[in-house]
Amino acid sequence: MAGNIKIIRSIKKMQAVSQQMSRKGTIGLVPTMGFLHEGHLSLIRQAKKQSDKVIFTIFVNPTQFAPNEDLSKYPRDEKGDIAKIKAAGGDIVFIPKRENIYPDGFETYVNCEKITQTLEGKSRPTHFRGVTPIVAKLFNIIRPDIAVFGQKDYQQVMVLKKMVVDLDYPIKMIIGSTVREKDGLAMSSRNKYFDASQRKEAICLFQALKTAKQLIKSDSITETVKLRASMKKTIKKICPTAKIDYIAFSDFESLKTTNKVNKNTICSLAVKLHGVRLIDNMKMG
Amino acid sequence: MAGNIKIIRSIKKMQAVSQQMSRKGTIGLVPTMGFLHEGHLSLIRQAKKQSDKVIFTIFVNPTQFAPNEDLSKYPRDEKGDIAKIKAAGGDIVFIPKRENIYPDGFETYVNCEKITQTLEGKSRPTHFRGVTPIVAKLFNIIRPDIAVFGQKDYQQVMVLKKMVVDLDYPIKMIIGSTVREKDGLAMSSRNKYFDASQRKEAICLFQALKTAKQLIKSDSITETVKLRASMKKTIKKICPTAKIDYIAFSDFESLKTTNKVNKNTICSLAVKLHGVRLIDNMKMG
Repeated sequence: MAGNIKIIRSIKKMQAVSQQMSRKGTIGLVPTMGFLHEGHLSLIRQAKKQSDKVIFTIFVNPTQFAPNEDLSKYPRDEKGDIAKIKAAGGDIVFIPKRENIYPDGFETYVNCEKITQTLEGKSRPTHFRGVTPIVAKLFNIIRPDIAVFGQKDYQQVMVLKKMVVDLDYPIKMIIGSTVREKDGLAMSSRNKYFDASQRKEAICLFQALKTAKQLIKSDSITETVKLRASMKKTIKKICPTAKIDYIAFSDFESLKTTNKVNKNTICSLAVKLHGVRLIDNMKMG
Repeated sequence: MAGNIKIIRSIKKMQAVSQQMSRKGTIGLVPTMGFLHEGHLSLIRQAKKQSDKVIFTIFVNPTQFAPNEDLSKYPRDEKGDIAKIKAAGGDIVFIPKRENIYPDGFETYVNCEKITQTLEGKSRPTHFRGVTPIVAKLFNIIRPDIAVFGQKDYQQVMVLKKMVVDLDYPIKMIIGSTVREKDGLAMSSRNKYFDASQRKEAICLFQALKTAKQLIKSDSITETVKLRASMKKTIKKICPTAKIDYIAFSDFESLKTTNKVNKNTICSLAVKLHGVRLIDNMKMG
């Protein structure tokens, strides 16, 4: 078990504390929207390995939700989260207030113009416009040496990496592996929305990814048209009411779509199940 | 006269040096496009007053020039600039290379969406889209405690202040007064474009601002329609071929246009004289 943990809610206080901290050693940052699961906690452990102190942030960021999305019902459990962060070895939890992060008159957005045009950015056109500024803000407040993000939101990591490179943030970006439930479902705060029978069907994303990987491996199929068709079948078999938003094969650096799988291909998909939109991805190489 | 001055051209080196520096004291940043005049040097002296070390940057930033503007002929004098910075007490000159600031695939822009819609932003629609990312980059590379910008580019300072507030940069923004030639012309690297007789006519911007201020003071005129008309006459009398881009009266915080001058009003204008576009501004309160 870990020692003391400090809760900070004020931006100015957080700036002062991390400035002090940075004089003594390196800072690892783990930004999240809270309602923590093992996936988040594995990011703390990754951050601890590579930095002296770990600052964990919890902020349900309104600007990355579109009006029709689940901002108002997004699950929260601040007390439980803090206990988990403490147990996982976080040093500081930064929980800023919404009105301080977005005061009246807020109008500054950071746009990675190309990499946001595909996948999630295509399906949720205002999403990344909300993600980049909140992370820029956290980077500016905390000035970390490293920042850890989960692979489950793969395009998000790649967009943020682009922001870091293009805007010269002296921050090392680390991608934490997706942590999965025993049956393969990628851990997500949104899994909480399902009842027991719906939860069983949520496995369809992982099963579809496995289907594609299997076909590539055993049958040497590389045409994404064929792979996509098989994945759709897998999904519909497990959850006949599933609404597939996209199944995409892309280069894992540029996120450019590809018609033929190669060693640099990542498959990403978004599926709406019983009103809940899930995403997942897997490298196909 | 000042002591040693260090020239740094590599982004990585600059990051490392300023990280070292920030452990020992505060850093003041003065970002410029070079070809220095007394206005720039006064900013160094302002920065020196409020920080332990002053980093001066020279970078003719291509993204803030539109295709029809004067990027290719923008005056440069690196050797002369360095001597002047040394004499004024700068500690470091950062002169990054264009291909390192904007490598292939650069695609990240910072947009202050409202405050850039007026004045210069209206006349030069892509201008601030180029200004904000280069300054964000310099802020991220150097992580200064204070940054000094000249009042002559008043909207630029206000846009950058907005960026600093909205993105939580822990940087104090300081506005250095406009330094003028003896006849009142605001110092600008672009004044170099004029021959002797054109140079005399360039005084029309300052004279127009003085006209407005005089009318407010002695005749208590506050209607901007009347003031603008008088300013136009002043300009046309001094330089009959002048092309007035705008003469605007705005709130000096929000930059919202006003029809009646009050104590918070700033007058800004942009005029094209013999092919050279000049700007100037003055508080009317």
